[in-house]
Amino acid sequence: MKVFILGSGAIGSFYGGKLQLAGAETALLCRSDYRTIKKQGVWVKSITGNFHFKPKMVLKSPHELPWKPDYILVCLKVLPEIDISAIIRPVVSEDTAICLIQNGIDIEPPIANAFPNNELISGLAFICCQRIKSGMVEHFDYGKLVLGNYPKGVSNKTRKLAKFFGKSGVVCDVTDNVIKARWQKLVWNAPFNPISVLAGGVTTEEMLSDKQMEETIRAVMGEVCALAEADGHPLPENVVEENISFTRVMTPYKTSMLLDYENKRPMEVEAILGNAVRKAKQMGIDVPHINTLYSLLSMLNKKNTC
Amino acid sequence: MKVFILGSGAIGSFYGGKLQLAGAETALLCRSDYRTIKKQGVWVKSITGNFHFKPKMVLKSPHELPWKPDYILVCLKVLPEIDISAIIRPVVSEDTAICLIQNGIDIEPPIANAFPNNELISGLAFICCQRIKSGMVEHFDYGKLVLGNYPKGVSNKTRKLAKFFGKSGVVCDVTDNVIKARWQKLVWNAPFNPISVLAGGVTTEEMLSDKQMEETIRAVMGEVCALAEADGHPLPENVVEENISFTRVMTPYKTSMLLDYENKRPMEVEAILGNAVRKAKQMGIDVPHINTLYSLLSMLNKKNTC
Repeated sequence: MKVFILGSGAIGSFYGGKLQLAGAETALLCRSDYRTIKKQGVWVKSITGNFHFKPKMVLKSPHELPWKPDYILVCLKVLPEIDISAIIRPVVSEDTAICLIQNGIDIEPPIANAFPNNELISGLAFICCQRIKSGMVEHFDYGKLVLGNYPKGVSNKTRKLAKFFGKSGVVCDVTDNVIKARWQKLVWNAPFNPISVLAGGVTTEEMLSDKQMEETIRAVMGEVCALAEADGHPLPENVVEENISFTRVMTPYKTSMLLDYENKRPMEVEAILGNAVRKAKQMGIDVPHINTLYSLLSMLNKKNTC
Repeated sequence: MKVFILGSGAIGSFYGGKLQLAGAETALLCRSDYRTIKKQGVWVKSITGNFHFKPKMVLKSPHELPWKPDYILVCLKVLPEIDISAIIRPVVSEDTAICLIQNGIDIEPPIANAFPNNELISGLAFICCQRIKSGMVEHFDYGKLVLGNYPKGVSNKTRKLAKFFGKSGVVCDVTDNVIKARWQKLVWNAPFNPISVLAGGVTTEEMLSDKQMEETIRAVMGEVCALAEADGHPLPENVVEENISFTRVMTPYKTSMLLDYENKRPMEVEAILGNAVRKAKQMGIDVPHINTLYSLLSMLNKKNTC
């Protein structure tokens, strides 16, 4: 199994490394970390066991890839300035399945439109991990993957990939409704990621220790549920309650968005909030809480990275 | 006319100084600026002409005041940790009128309840000014005052105070419905003050240069209008439009809340947003945009000042 991995951040290093451990032949596309990773690979400090990811190939450009990959694992952040289709076009062949391990809602259409004849696997990572420095990643908690074909179904190729992840110790579920799975993940991401930044750099625990903030969090979650339902994917009735109580018992941590903000990196504002706001407009659903977060975070994001 | 002024910040120094120029006998209560102001008074650099405010008396404690004031001019920020009633109790006599020159909505009840037999004048300052350092204040723009008795009407004492301000060159209107005037001012304050902070330190111009943000601002204003109407004080139909176009042509500036935030001073979150949220709950009005701003700003405020 030949896998081309886009991105040497925490997600690409962790899951790419796991595939390599399971016996895949991997090529890792790097940007700023190229020199370090070419020389030493990536050290992954993980609660499930440290490991060393030494990809078969470390590339600076997709054009250097000597084979056509069976899978492309897209582990880049979803940002307007990153044109994933343009990056992978040189290496996509007829049989290549494109697998997105990315956050957000409604992030698949640009890739689906650019490669209408390729299998598109949409994946969600439930993990706390962080790039500590060039060539070093730390995995703090969780780690489950959920994969499904976009817009629906589970192909053999998807099952095969899930099995490979399983072999390396990653819990990897498949779902025949990945759009619903994305809505379900957004129930958590839409409130906690933006608020952790906007409220001044707060942990999940701090957010839930404030009664008024908890109300706001529940209201944002309720809006996501309304959107999912209007989109034809009603979520379980207890999804808000479950997300709140689950987060209460979690080890308090900084969200990925907060880590990005603190490191002056662009945040995934469009993938997490902007796409939801646009979907809401299309469907005529009122999402005032999400709208407010979106306006504030968009502006803060520009300020933070300019 | 004997006036006891609470607060040697920008508002107290500017308006207190103007009353002194008009011939009032003033006593100024200071805290951290006591030594400087006792020695040299306050220098006010103003677009309408610089002046020097040398109060007749500079006090550290209200107990030092040798006379019963005709007016108490309260020019402190509205903060939960400042108990204005307790501060002024020693100097309030039967004939003392208490005049609040403060921001926010529904800020009068605690004072009205503490001094049910005294005249309570509620005042709004439309001014851009800032304390530059101890004993130095700068007045950048505007300066109009609006005074009215709480909860309604205009007494002779209020007219007399307005006349005194007028004598010193301050445009001072009176209104027989100051509660409505407060709602009307909140139309501007509720969006621009909080958003200027939450969006990362932005000016009025930056806020209005973003289409999505303008929508959010209009939505917040709309919620204030709904509250005012439910409270029995419907605002003019074009109030949102007017506030937007007026702000567009304003010299771009940092809001007072942003100045507080940047200087790590507590912000008037409760006066501007918290009281509106509580009023909304009482009246059963849904204010999701204001709620979101309130949750975020409350938490940010705690983070910023601790």
